[in-house]
Amino acid sequence: MFPKNTWYVACTPDEIADKPLGRQICGEKIVFYRGPEGKVAALEDFCPHRGAPLSLGFVRDGNLVCGYHGLEMGCDGKTVAMPGQRVRGFPCIRQYPVEERYGFIWVWTGDAEKADPALIHHLEWADNPEWAYGGGLYHINCDYRLMIDNLMDLTHETYVHANSIGQPEIDEASPTTKVEGDTVVTSRHMENIMAPPFWRMALRGNNLADDVPVDRWQICRFTPPSHVLIEVGVAHAGKGGYEADPKYKASSIVVDFITPETETSIWYFWGMARNFRPEDEALTATIREGQGKIFSEDLEMLERQQQNLLAYPERQLLKLNIDAGGVQSRRILERLIESERSAAAPLNMIATA
Amino acid sequence: MFPKNTWYVACTPDEIADKPLGRQICGEKIVFYRGPEGKVAALEDFCPHRGAPLSLGFVRDGNLVCGYHGLEMGCDGKTVAMPGQRVRGFPCIRQYPVEERYGFIWVWTGDAEKADPALIHHLEWADNPEWAYGGGLYHINCDYRLMIDNLMDLTHETYVHANSIGQPEIDEASPTTKVEGDTVVTSRHMENIMAPPFWRMALRGNNLADDVPVDRWQICRFTPPSHVLIEVGVAHAGKGGYEADPKYKASSIVVDFITPETETSIWYFWGMARNFRPEDEALTATIREGQGKIFSEDLEMLERQQQNLLAYPERQLLKLNIDAGGVQSRRILERLIESERSAAAPLNMIATA
Amino acid sequence: MFPKNTWYVACTPDEIADKPLGRQICGEKIVFYRGPEGKVAALEDFCPHRGAPLSLGFVRDGNLVCGYHGLEMGCDGKTVAMPGQRVRGFPCIRQYPVEERYGFIWVWTGDAEKADPALIHHLEWADNPEWAYGGGLYHINCDYRLMIDNLMDLTHETYVHANSIGQPEIDEASPTTKVEGDTVVTSRHMENIMAPPFWRMALRGNNLADDVPVDRWQICRFTPPSHVLIEVGVAHAGKGGYEADPKYKASSIVVDFITPETETSIWYFWGMARNFRPEDEALTATIREGQGKIFSEDLEMLERQQQNLLAYPERQLLKLNIDAGGVQSRRILERLIESERSAAAPLNMIATA
Repeated sequence: MFPKNTWYVACTPDEIADKPLGRQICGEKIVFYRGPEGKVAALEDFCPHRGAPLSLGFVRDGNLVCGYHGLEMGCDGKTVAMPGQRVRGFPCIRQYPVEERYGFIWVWTGDAEKADPALIHHLEWADNPEWAYGGGLYHINCDYRLMIDNLMDLTHETYVHANSIGQPEIDEASPTTKVEGDTVVTSRHMENIMAPPFWRMALRGNNLADDVPVDRWQICRFTPPSHVLIEVGVAHAGKGGYEADPKYKASSIVVDFITPETETSIWYFWGMARNFRPEDEALTATIREGQGKIFSEDLEMLERQQQNLLAYPERQLLKLNIDAGGVQSRRILERLIESERSAAAPLNMIATA
Repeated sequence: MFPKNTWYVACTPDEIADKPLGRQICGEKIVFYRGPEGKVAALEDFCPHRGAPLSLGFVRDGNLVCGYHGLEMGCDGKTVAMPGQRVRGFPCIRQYPVEERYGFIWVWTGDAEKADPALIHHLEWADNPEWAYGGGLYHINCDYRLMIDNLMDLTHETYVHANSIGQPEIDEASPTTKVEGDTVVTSRHMENIMAPPFWRMALRGNNLADDVPVDRWQICRFTPPSHVLIEVGVAHAGKGGYEADPKYKASSIVVDFITPETETSIWYFWGMARNFRPEDEALTATIREGQGKIFSEDLEMLERQQQNLLAYPERQLLKLNIDAGGVQSRRILERLIESERSAAAPLNMIATA
Repeated sequence: MFPKNTWYVACTPDEIADKPLGRQICGEKIVFYRGPEGKVAALEDFCPHRGAPLSLGFVRDGNLVCGYHGLEMGCDGKTVAMPGQRVRGFPCIRQYPVEERYGFIWVWTGDAEKADPALIHHLEWADNPEWAYGGGLYHINCDYRLMIDNLMDLTHETYVHANSIGQPEIDEASPTTKVEGDTVVTSRHMENIMAPPFWRMALRGNNLADDVPVDRWQICRFTPPSHVLIEVGVAHAGKGGYEADPKYKASSIVVDFITPETETSIWYFWGMARNFRPEDEALTATIREGQGKIFSEDLEMLERQQQNLLAYPERQLLKLNIDAGGVQSRRILERLIESERSAAAPLNMIATA
C-alpha cells in the first residue's frame, strides 16, 4: 500500500559508479545503471532471454550486457543485440522513468506517462554551495509508514536517543500539527533549556558557547510519498529562537527519504544538510558518523514494532496529539493511494469486461 | 496444544536483574520485569500507544516505561502516565499472573481468575539449605512433548550420552511406569553394575570408591504441564540401592521445566539439585558445566526429530514399554487440554450466539 | 517435476566413509551407509520407533543403529533388534535401490521393481587406468533444469567465466544440436583461435606450446535424468581439431551429475575426467581446484535466476538456437515424467475406486 505515481529516491550515484545495482522498490525488482552518456537508466531486473537478473551484468557502450549469455539491453527496455542472434522480435522489458537530481537517483514505479521530472521534490539546499550534505542508507524491516510516524513524532528522541539528541524538555513541549495541502508540518519549540550533547557539539562547531541556555526547535515537514525534512536547531536563549540571527544559532535540516522495498521493508536514506562551514569535509564526515550512530538506534525499535503489529493485526493503536503528524501523513497517503486505485479501476473494468 | 491454566517456568531472576525481559510463552509475547518493591510483573509485550515492545523499555519507580515514547505502564496493565497526555482512557494491556518462587519466575497464561499460587509445583529441596541447585536454559525447536518423551525414556542415554551417563545396562533394565492421578512415574533400577563416568565423578565427590560395583536408579516423575523431575543416583552395590544409607550413595534430582514457546519450540530449563556438599559452589559450577554439555547433546536429535515429524505428519510412531512414561504423560495432557476446551466452549457459544 | 524411475548420483564414497549420511533426494529424506560386507545401503531417514533421523546413528555389524534409542535397522528396512523389545511387528521403512559404481553411489527413488543396475549411466573412462578423475559437490538453490540449461549452452562461459574458460569466439561459433533417442548433443567448434587461460594451462600440462592458434571444441551430451557430459579440448590449429592426433591436443570430459534435492534445489556433482598424465595426483588436485573455482561462478547466477523465475512465474522465456540443447533436454524430461505419470495412473484409479 504505497503511492506509485510519484518519485522515490532509489539510490545514490556512488551505488552505480562501478557496476549496475539491483534493488527492489515498491515490490518491483529494478536494475539501475549509467547508460548512454552516463545518463542513469532503470529497467526491470529480468533478462528477456532466460530470466537472469541484469544487475549481475555490466555496461558496455551505454548498453546493459547480461552477465549470463551476453544479451545487450538498451535503456528503453529493447534488446539491442545478442551474439549470433536477430533480436528484433525479442520481448521488451519494462523501463522505469528515472532522474538524477540533487545528489540522488529518483525512480517512478507507476504510470510512466505521468512521470514529470518537475514533480521531483525540490531541495533548495542541494545545489547551493553555502550548504553541505552528508548521509547514508539503512535497510529496515518495517512498513514505510512506521518510519514516517517515527520522524513526525520526535518525542521518541527522549527515549530512543537519550544520550545524544534526546532530552526531557521535548516531551514537555507540546507540538502543533498543521496540514497545508499535501504537506504536514509538526512543530515544536523549547525555550530556555540546556542543549543536549549533539547540539553542544554543533554550537562549538559554530564557535558559540555551549554552556548557556538555548531555544530549540524542530519543524518536521512530511510531503508525499514519504519524505520527511526536519528543520532543527538551537539559538542562544532570548535571541529570537528559530528567527534568531545566524550568528547566535546552529541549525540544519535532517533529511529523510523513505523508499518502500516491500510492504514491510524500506530503504531509508538519511542525512543532514547544513549551512555552516559547508567546505569543511571533516565536519561533514563527523556529523555523518554521529547521525548514523544515532539513527541506527531506531532500527531495533521499528523492526520489533513491525513484528508486534504483524502478530496482533487486529489491535487499534492510539492517535494522540503527538501522533498527529503521522496520522495526518497517513491520511494524505490513503487519499493518494485511493485516487490511484479509482483512476486505474475503469481500465481494469474494460480489461475484464 | 498445551494446557494454559497452569504455572510454567518463565525465566530465572538473573534474566530480569538489569532490564525487562521479552519472552514468548505458549504463543504469547510477554514482558517480565521487577515492578513496585521489586516484585516480579508480567504484561503483554505491546505498548498500547503504538505497539512497540515494552521489553525494549526500562523500569522507573516500579513502572515500566516504554522505550519509544515514554508511556508509563503499571504492573496491572493500566497506563499510569505519559508525558503531556491524559491517560485515563488508554486501553489496558493484559496482565499475567506471575510468581517468584524456588528461584524461578512462574507465569500463568490461561484464565487469570484460576491462577492460584498454591498450585505452583512444590519443590521440597528449593528452600532447604541442605540442598544446592545449579542449572541453565536452552532454546530448542521442538514440540514440548518431544522433550517430555525424551526425559521419560532414559534409554536414550545409552546412545545420545554414551560418553557420560549412558551405559548398556540401562537398556537391559526394563522400566516400570505407574500413573498416580496426574503424575506419571517411570522407574528403572540397575543392580551390581559399574558406574558410568558422570557417576564415578559423583562418587569421588562424595568420598566414595568409584571402582566398585554399584546399584543405580532413575525415577522419572512427570507432572503437568511439563515438569519432569528425576531422582537419580548410585549406591555401592548391596547396600540397599535407592534405600541405602546416604554414606554409601551419591544421588541428586535432575530438574526439567519445559516451557512451550510456540507449538514447535520450547524454553528448556534444566538443572540438578543435590543434597551433598551444598555449600561447595565450585562443585555446583562443575556439575552445571558437565550437565549443560551432556544435555546439549539432545538438541540436534530433538530438532531433527521434529523436522522429520513435520515432514511426515501421517506417520504413526511406536508406543513400546519404554515409551509408556511419555505416552501416559501425553494422555494426561490431552485430558487437561480437552477439559480447558470444554470449559471454554459455553462461553464461546454465548459470545457467538 | 523430475523422473523418479532412474538412477541419480546420491553421494561419493568418502561421504559415507566414517558415518551414515542423511541427504534429501527428489524430495525424499534418505540415509546412506555401508551395510553388511561394506555394501552401500539406502533407507528412509526415519526411525519407525519415534521418527528420529537414522542418519544421526551409527553402523554396527552391518546394521544401522538409531542414535536415539538403539533400534537396529537392517538394510532391507526391517528392524533387526532393539534392546528389550520384540521387533517382529515393527513397521518397515522404505528401502531404496542403491548401487556403487564408477566412484559414485547411485540411488533410484522410483518404483523399486524397475531398478535395473544395467541402466546406470555407463562411464567408459571411470574404470580405465589411462584416465584420472577429480571433482566436487555444490549445493545450489535452483531447479535442476536451470543447471541443465546452463551446461547445454556454453555461451555463458564468455560472460560468467570470462577470466578462465570464456572467450568471445564461443559466442561467434554457432552450435548445432542433435537429438538421438533420449540423448541430446550440442556441439560447437571454434577454429584458429587463441586458447583462453584454462586451456593454455592444459596445453602446458601436455608439453604443448600455448602461444599458438588452436582449434577448440565443446560437445555437450545430455542423457536422462540429468547428466551432462561434455567433451572439451583444444588442438594446435590445423591438426584436425577434435580428430587430431593426441600429441597435438589437450582434452578432457567435463562431468556433471545434477541431482534434484527439492523442486528448487540441487546437489551438483561436478568434475573432470582426463586421459593425460592420469597418475599425476598433483595435477588432478590443481585441476579440481581450478574447476571448482570456475564452477562456483555459476552459483549466484543460477540462484538469482531461480528467484527471478519464482517472482515472475508467468513470464515466457526465449528459446533461441543456443538454447536448443536445454529445450530438447526438457522435452525428453517432460516425456519421461508424463510416461511415469500415465503408468502410475491406473494403479491410483484402482486404489481410489
